[in-house]
Amino acid sequence: MSYKTLEPFFKPKSIAVIGASRSPEKVGYQLVKSLIDVGYEGKIYPVNPKADEILGLKAYPNIKSIGETVDLALIAIPAQNVPEVLREAGECKVKCVIVISGGFKEIGGEGVKLEEEIKRIAKEYGIRLMGPNCIGVYDPHNKIDTLFLPRDRALRPKKGDIAFISQSGAMGVAFLDWMTMENIGLSCFISYGNKADVDEIDLLEYLLHDEKCKVIAMYLEEITNGKRFIEVASETSKVKPIVAIKAGRTMEGAKAVSSHTGALAGREEIVEAAFKKAGVIRAYDTHELFDYARALATGRIAFGDRIAIITDGGGAGVMATDKLTDERMGVGLKLAELKDETKLELKKHIPPFAIPHNPIDLTGSVTPEMYGDVIEIVSRDENVDGIVVIVLIHPPGMNVKVVDEVEKAYKSTNKPILIASTGGEPTQKILRMFQERGIPSYPEVERAVKAMKCLVERGRYLKKLERRFH
Amino acid sequence: MSYKTLEPFFKPKSIAVIGASRSPEKVGYQLVKSLIDVGYEGKIYPVNPKADEILGLKAYPNIKSIGETVDLALIAIPAQNVPEVLREAGECKVKCVIVISGGFKEIGGEGVKLEEEIKRIAKEYGIRLMGPNCIGVYDPHNKIDTLFLPRDRALRPKKGDIAFISQSGAMGVAFLDWMTMENIGLSCFISYGNKADVDEIDLLEYLLHDEKCKVIAMYLEEITNGKRFIEVASETSKVKPIVAIKAGRTMEGAKAVSSHTGALAGREEIVEAAFKKAGVIRAYDTHELFDYARALATGRIAFGDRIAIITDGGGAGVMATDKLTDERMGVGLKLAELKDETKLELKKHIPPFAIPHNPIDLTGSVTPEMYGDVIEIVSRDENVDGIVVIVLIHPPGMNVKVVDEVEKAYKSTNKPILIASTGGEPTQKILRMFQERGIPSYPEVERAVKAMKCLVERGRYLKKLERRFH
Repeated sequence: MSYKTLEPFFKPKSIAVIGASRSPEKVGYQLVKSLIDVGYEGKIYPVNPKADEILGLKAYPNIKSIGETVDLALIAIPAQNVPEVLREAGECKVKCVIVISGGFKEIGGEGVKLEEEIKRIAKEYGIRLMGPNCIGVYDPHNKIDTLFLPRDRALRPKKGDIAFISQSGAMGVAFLDWMTMENIGLSCFISYGNKADVDEIDLLEYLLHDEKCKVIAMYLEEITNGKRFIEVASETSKVKPIVAIKAGRTMEGAKAVSSHTGALAGREEIVEAAFKKAGVIRAYDTHELFDYARALATGRIAFGDRIAIITDGGGAGVMATDKLTDERMGVGLKLAELKDETKLELKKHIPPFAIPHNPIDLTGSVTPEMYGDVIEIVSRDENVDGIVVIVLIHPPGMNVKVVDEVEKAYKSTNKPILIASTGGEPTQKILRMFQERGIPSYPEVERAVKAMKCLVERGRYLKKLERRFH
Repeated sequence: MSYKTLEPFFKPKSIAVIGASRSPEKVGYQLVKSLIDVGYEGKIYPVNPKADEILGLKAYPNIKSIGETVDLALIAIPAQNVPEVLREAGECKVKCVIVISGGFKEIGGEGVKLEEEIKRIAKEYGIRLMGPNCIGVYDPHNKIDTLFLPRDRALRPKKGDIAFISQSGAMGVAFLDWMTMENIGLSCFISYGNKADVDEIDLLEYLLHDEKCKVIAMYLEEITNGKRFIEVASETSKVKPIVAIKAGRTMEGAKAVSSHTGALAGREEIVEAAFKKAGVIRAYDTHELFDYARALATGRIAFGDRIAIITDGGGAGVMATDKLTDERMGVGLKLAELKDETKLELKKHIPPFAIPHNPIDLTGSVTPEMYGDVIEIVSRDENVDGIVVIVLIHPPGMNVKVVDEVEKAYKSTNKPILIASTGGEPTQKILRMFQERGIPSYPEVERAVKAMKCLVERGRYLKKLERRFH
């Protein structure tokens, strides 16, 4: 089916909320509230036979009584009542439906039958169905928010270019929270749950055509159709990098998947091979997914594995070097061998007792200007494919000016530069400042090193594609 | 030498600051300021031939002119002048000296000779020498602070029972920052740099006898004397758990060590064997060190590897299960098999559509009370050796009361319980609340799982010791 059938999930002219409620602790209340809070510009129709008005909006006893076209319906009522309502939605020509309710395939037995039934009804009426057992869509560009999670606890990030599609709502929400906290922009977020109809493949196709999306992050518990996944993911990853977590890797994890979304997690070797073939970069935990996505969102790629490390703390430089070069416990990249002219040039800018080799330790006598100069010099070296810059702000000569200095140097090159800075609140502030200037910054040296590996992987994949086409 | 010779580093009655300065950007200014700021209760003697007064304290042209006993001298002057001043300190019967200055073994050549010289002088006069190239001691219990890093950027944690000894100052400072941010207490911090005299073995001996220390965390770049290290660490780890990072694991990392503290990093296999023999738990990055130390500080031990996971997000439960059970990418523990009576009891407290098996998913219908009840029930199960509790605060029915509920359940058992909660500022607040109540809490499920592994390792070690003695 064409990806265009999914458009009403993202750009609906009107939305009905089935199971809307007047009690703030209810999902059906939060759904209406989220749409209002996000500034949704179309019509909202709360549906509840026992209410006349919800959150200042006229309420309707059922979909039919609305008497107008409904592009998208959100359903949050007990599972056993969903088929009936879905049929009614079909008769009213609702185009898309998000079934928030749980109690389907994930609970087994009756739930499995119920899910089969809603699948059949959706097909019969040509409705595109997202869920059940999901939280749906948050799209800050199109001002759609179907998340029933209160905004004071579940934060909503600003507009941006990273899309996140997730089988799990909870993992998605953690991701959104982190994005908000780090001031990173989202293109859209989609939680698709048990995927009775809309699945990760449909969503990849949609995102491939969505101009505001530059990078795709995914949390998967199951790949429905391996062959088709590889096809679509391959097409997509040529244009937009894809990073994915595949949960349920272990036998025990796979069992847990089954009671979460009722899916079969699939064999680990097959997933591994499919990702490799399709150019999907794999992440193993949420932070990795988050870290890789924002490194990739810069559009900078490491076209080689020779990395320079610049630091003002010797120990941090050693730790980064271990992580960078270790084949088993680390990422297995190379410490760049600096050219002689680079070393000579560096000598003029580093403290007299510092040694100009990689990792380059600016020592406790560091200044913000030193960072700017040294990054510029190192980035000009042809032996360097990427730079990890460790900025510890504790030394007496350091201050926030380091952000300006690094930014200037960052703009002087196209090579990837990732920042790491470990420490408390003053450090966190600096990290956010870097991130606001579009320079990915990480609170641990190891995380920056892993993110650099991801840019190297992307570079390798693009080179491989290139060879294939020339 | 007796560990008692180290006491003046921690409980000096008087301190001279050689190289004290009136310029706030100078190390010699910050040293005096840090001692004042920490509320040091003894006498401070700034030494600077060009000043009469520094920060309101009378300054002296040299140590001799002080005319009183000096227990501890901090030296922050250019390396080439250190031998002369050290000799003067010796003649004045100074007991302990911290050489902050760099420019010794770590720069090679002349630096190596200079370090040999100060070593010889210290020995000749019976001075215990810490450093050179270090930042010394921060001890909030004894109100000693020799860190030249301004307090607004390098945070100082509150009093507590975790000791941290670090060859690197920068790694140490990151650790202190994190402790402060998470409100975790420190017994003392020691950065010992090039260890011309005082080394990690001396410090372990001191900490073994230091009552306020319950757990020891270490960042090491080199182990000076393997045999003696094993002896002392074994003695210590019987009483107090030791967690350690050994940096310079890789060939490239070892080279970086050499230009950092001038040390030889030593063969990885030997380090591995030494740690194992001495019962030292190994951490591979700063966060692991931090996470393990605060799990161990609770004094709770997992006497088995069967772990229960309680969550309100299915995806997070799956991720935790993967990490828990995976032998290769995870920690290789077991998912506890709940007893039938536990399952029956759980049924009464979890949502009707939730399935009472491990991982236990309380679903989006969770309440704070549910956490309290479920943790209590699960902790009573003899098949459970430890519990990882994932608390996502996003669902509508959740709120901060969950902290009270979990605390109540926590106090009802002696089994280890570790919290994980992923998310933005509202989540961070909850994490800090848990930590304040003495319940270790982690911002990623994977980190909580790894910390649980550390408690299982500690349990195994203690069991092994027990077998040896019975």
